[in-house]
Amino acid sequence: MTGEIEELRARLAEIDDLRNASRVLDWDQQTMMPPRGAQARADALATLERIVHEMFVDERTGRLIERARTRLEREGADPDSDEARLVAVAARRYEKARRVPSELAAEIAHASSIGQQVWAKARAEEDFAAFAPYLQRNLDLARRYVDCFQGLDFERPYDVLLDDYDPGMRAAEVARLFEQLKAGLVPLIERLSPVVVDDSCLHRRVDVERQRRLVREVLQLQGFEPEGWRLDDAVHPFATSLGSGDVRITTRWDEGYFPMALFGAMHECGHGLYEDGIAPELRRTPLGHAESLSLHESQSRLWENFVGRGRAFAEQLAPRVVRTLYGGEGELDPEQLFRAVNRVAPSFIRVEADEATYGLHIVLRFELEQELIEGRIGVGELPEAWNARMREYLGLEVRRDSEGVLQDVHWSAGLIGYFPTYALGNMIAAQLWACARRELPELERQIAGGELRTLREWLRERVHRHGAKFQTGELLRRVCGEPLMAEPFLRYLREKLGAAYGVELIPPQPHQEVE
Amino acid sequence: MTGEIEELRARLAEIDDLRNASRVLDWDQQTMMPPRGAQARADALATLERIVHEMFVDERTGRLIERARTRLEREGADPDSDEARLVAVAARRYEKARRVPSELAAEIAHASSIGQQVWAKARAEEDFAAFAPYLQRNLDLARRYVDCFQGLDFERPYDVLLDDYDPGMRAAEVARLFEQLKAGLVPLIERLSPVVVDDSCLHRRVDVERQRRLVREVLQLQGFEPEGWRLDDAVHPFATSLGSGDVRITTRWDEGYFPMALFGAMHECGHGLYEDGIAPELRRTPLGHAESLSLHESQSRLWENFVGRGRAFAEQLAPRVVRTLYGGEGELDPEQLFRAVNRVAPSFIRVEADEATYGLHIVLRFELEQELIEGRIGVGELPEAWNARMREYLGLEVRRDSEGVLQDVHWSAGLIGYFPTYALGNMIAAQLWACARRELPELERQIAGGELRTLREWLRERVHRHGAKFQTGELLRRVCGEPLMAEPFLRYLREKLGAAYGVELIPPQPHQEVE
Repeated sequence: MTGEIEELRARLAEIDDLRNASRVLDWDQQTMMPPRGAQARADALATLERIVHEMFVDERTGRLIERARTRLEREGADPDSDEARLVAVAARRYEKARRVPSELAAEIAHASSIGQQVWAKARAEEDFAAFAPYLQRNLDLARRYVDCFQGLDFERPYDVLLDDYDPGMRAAEVARLFEQLKAGLVPLIERLSPVVVDDSCLHRRVDVERQRRLVREVLQLQGFEPEGWRLDDAVHPFATSLGSGDVRITTRWDEGYFPMALFGAMHECGHGLYEDGIAPELRRTPLGHAESLSLHESQSRLWENFVGRGRAFAEQLAPRVVRTLYGGEGELDPEQLFRAVNRVAPSFIRVEADEATYGLHIVLRFELEQELIEGRIGVGELPEAWNARMREYLGLEVRRDSEGVLQDVHWSAGLIGYFPTYALGNMIAAQLWACARRELPELERQIAGGELRTLREWLRERVHRHGAKFQTGELLRRVCGEPLMAEPFLRYLREKLGAAYGVELIPPQPHQEVE
Repeated sequence: MTGEIEELRARLAEIDDLRNASRVLDWDQQTMMPPRGAQARADALATLERIVHEMFVDERTGRLIERARTRLEREGADPDSDEARLVAVAARRYEKARRVPSELAAEIAHASSIGQQVWAKARAEEDFAAFAPYLQRNLDLARRYVDCFQGLDFERPYDVLLDDYDPGMRAAEVARLFEQLKAGLVPLIERLSPVVVDDSCLHRRVDVERQRRLVREVLQLQGFEPEGWRLDDAVHPFATSLGSGDVRITTRWDEGYFPMALFGAMHECGHGLYEDGIAPELRRTPLGHAESLSLHESQSRLWENFVGRGRAFAEQLAPRVVRTLYGGEGELDPEQLFRAVNRVAPSFIRVEADEATYGLHIVLRFELEQELIEGRIGVGELPEAWNARMREYLGLEVRRDSEGVLQDVHWSAGLIGYFPTYALGNMIAAQLWACARRELPELERQIAGGELRTLREWLRERVHRHGAKFQTGELLRRVCGEPLMAEPFLRYLREKLGAAYGVELIPPQPHQEVE
């Protein structure tokens, strides 16, 4: 496959190089940069991003895509081949990018930057009213952005936004899945949250150096390799890949609660393994970085929760906690650790929520942002709407906006349509997990023995190596032979939490239709 | 001053942004990047550099420069104004960059990369013959590069190369200065090197953590501020500025010899202070990073040697060494420390040389690379020529090429014409130092008291804030009212080393011309 495809590849490789450069600048900004470097860094990033955008939407790119497509059609190429997917993905992104006028893109970027600053202040001062006009501005810009895509295959305005974070995903499908999720989670949480769980073993004071040692040990089991990875500190942990062979993950530390750093690091390592596992032949192409944030989140959640907080891994973790964190003093029953890390308790803050209540935090946000974007509620009504839903779903009375509507950065940054991918990630993880358990009969025993390679290789082969070749639904069909579903996640939760709490959790009966 | 100037500024600001992006990638590569990221990083850097180059040499840049120049002429602008210097410096760089065909630039970059790899292996295996063809290739490319500049105001081929590292500097001037330097240094070294100096106080084993504390203390005195600076480890220490307000310096550690890290860090901090001190209004223009490597080196040497290894600072350093490095045990007489850090002893390796012998390492390289570029010696004769000169200048018998001709990376990377800036930096430092002492009568007392702010502010005001506005000679004339000279450096050495060794060092008498 030469000529047209290679020319397109060469062009896209340069664009990928510059995107990797942006990622380096961004990683450095979040982990290393001294505060006074902020303005120069913002300038450098803005210029770099503008130039990448210009290169990508240039008509030359369009012509190269068109010629490559023609060539593939003439040769009757397999639509699932790397070449065909490369051209299809590039064409789709080009089509989308071309439709957004650069003035609008610049307005969005600027509003995002200002929005985040205002939000940080508003959150600190519990002043939603100060933030409201900026949120309104972001919503107005999001609507103008949506309007750019008329004529494409989107049914609802929200579809356009969602598509940026999970290409091919649609609001109607998410709504259907989230209804099932809500219906399953609410009774589960009602049943478990009154039960008292002793999690004092997580709250012993442990200095950061000891925690670092444990995190290193666990990450090494998971697949972190110093030759190609870094672990650093960040206020808001994240993972990124700065190009083939260079994975950077971050975590944060709480001396009074080691699971913050440990499970945070396992989470980011899951993201990192996805990027690290992409096939070499897809590198320096648009397929060479994972695209669907739902799939990405499925990998981080699978390692953090399905493995990290699972019963089998507790066998590994408990003695390591005693040895490395407690300095060899005392004992820790794996069963006790397993129960402690799976405590279900409604709380206000999404990023601190347990696995069961987490889903409802997302459902709430998904519902509200759809209503906002479709104008069914106004920005001024948002805090009340938020608080009412927190009461309904989690039985909590929000006392201040910093633990309510002002807690997340996303809306201030114009990231509307992003939240659903967190919960979709959990569902995907559950489907992959069930599939892996079927295909790897020794999986639980291996995990208990600290042997995580088999799972990692399975995920690499089934999921990671494809990069951005397949959209969420298509990938799931290929790996598990089934569409995206909520039930496997609910089943997983009932099974695990039932074991942790020593109770039997029976799924609610489906409503009998009255004939 | 709007319109034409602002348009040029906007264009150059984008170019500066991308150059800062390259600097981030380069810094990360040398300090943070895991080894497996090397290929992707090389791709990203190559693409970024190609795009910056294309943007700069684009005819649009030329038109903007031309229009800005016309505008300034029409308005009769002061030739020393920021605007006039901005246009002049941009025009000069544009003229030079345009003359190098991109194929040649790519060949040079590629040969540099390969050359460094071959050199590293050849040095490890003591195999000059394996390296010779690659050096020959670099010389051939350097000659082709030189040929691009026919018709410009260069007298000798070497002038073209030198001009890239110290704009405006010429080989004839350097040759004249280096003759004086050599004439002054040889007898000085002959007099001092037989004297035995006890420097055991520098060789006590000190773990890196303690050294780090001392380095932090000293850098803080020097002007390192955590809000805008970072100190990291690097195999080959360097300093860089990633944009206004973001200075990164590096050092390396030897547990058996703390001056390696300490004076290395002071050296890089000197470079950093230069970049940090550039006036805000020059930022995001070609004047916003220092240009002359000789001036740059003058700042690093001034802080490392004139301050750091000076008698006054020994008053600060000795008690800190005892407290922080020796853990409070024992005593260290400032006089003893002063003598130890100023020990003169011919040695093979340039980067480990003392202040006096260092100059001869540079003179030797300068002479050889001129002879190479002008074809007066061949690559095959180089080791013998090197060794003969080491015998003549430093009285040393080179035993193997790794301590001789293969020790430095520069020639393997195609950096020919770079070495002189190291010794010119020493000369400039001496002239600035003499000038500062005249204008700041309390200087020695301040340094002894750990008060380095006055000197730092003086340098900022006189040197740093101008960025790349003035070439080396012009800046010296402005600050000291004199041209670049060798004698102030020799005088400084005689005075300091005379005091350290307790001897009187009399300058050699000028030859009497026979009438």
